[in-house]
Amino acid sequence: MDLKTFIRDIPDFPSQGILFKDITPLLKNPKALRTTTERLVQMVHDEIDIVVGMESRGFFFAPVLASSLNAGFVPVRKPGKLPGKVVGETYALEYGQDTLEILEDSISKGDRVLIHDDVLATGGTAKATCALVERLGGKIVQCNFLIELDFLRGREQLNGFDVKSLMRY
Amino acid sequence: MDLKTFIRDIPDFPSQGILFKDITPLLKNPKALRTTTERLVQMVHDEIDIVVGMESRGFFFAPVLASSLNAGFVPVRKPGKLPGKVVGETYALEYGQDTLEILEDSISKGDRVLIHDDVLATGGTAKATCALVERLGGKIVQCNFLIELDFLRGREQLNGFDVKSLMRY
Repeated sequence: MDLKTFIRDIPDFPSQGILFKDITPLLKNPKALRTTTERLVQMVHDEIDIVVGMESRGFFFAPVLASSLNAGFVPVRKPGKLPGKVVGETYALEYGQDTLEILEDSISKGDRVLIHDDVLATGGTAKATCALVERLGGKIVQCNFLIELDFLRGREQLNGFDVKSLMRY
Repeated sequence: MDLKTFIRDIPDFPSQGILFKDITPLLKNPKALRTTTERLVQMVHDEIDIVVGMESRGFFFAPVLASSLNAGFVPVRKPGKLPGKVVGETYALEYGQDTLEILEDSISKGDRVLIHDDVLATGGTAKATCALVERLGGKIVQCNFLIELDFLRGREQLNGFDVKSLMRY
């Protein structure tokens, strides 16, 4: 099954000049949805304790990956969304900056962590998430993505980590 | 397995006077995560074509429910997040209003739809989602929730639909 046939190009979204890779056709097709989960799971060869997924589209597959790998799921969210004590990481965007948060008690020292998001673009979100996980003492086993946009070189932000993507453009 | 032992009460979140039901301990525990999925699936007795999940916490279980039911997954999102042509529904909040959107081509006439969210509170979000699905011609088979807050009477907003919740408070 060629999963790329379920990815739709949307020009100028969310802003002018951006060619957006839309995964909604893949999500909507029962066979593509299941196949995607299976292939994401197949990319992981080590034991995982926690799958960390990033708000919001990282939530589509991170919990099902966790279930399939017999691990727990931990969300990384935008500021103010998580209840309880959080730690935050601020990172630079092209214009301005953004912050991600994780619950302080969500990862234990030595936990083996898989980080998952839908798209690896410039790598800012993934890098900030890795920093949060490591600050809590987690060991990052792999960063895995549905889609990687090679020309944005996000992989270079994740130097030293095992980075795997299902579809590369 | 008593799933309620994995729900944490957070007082005054997200605002003063609200007792928030935090599901992150349930998500983090591998066995609780799997059991939740299994029990949500067991609540569904009819064939389902599409599972609709609401941003953001509805995304935790809607895709895995879709996979388990051999259905597709369709996200309902806040304005401006979905690429392509959308239809929107605006609904009243205690103060002000909110809007939800769905992709116009995401549901076909006659599709059998399961609506899923983490919490049924006042029912505004769920009611707006039902309206969107019906506007696209979908047939709502069930609205299912992880948690229902009985005292907020959200169920009354979903009159005529099959409403099921895993945990009631």
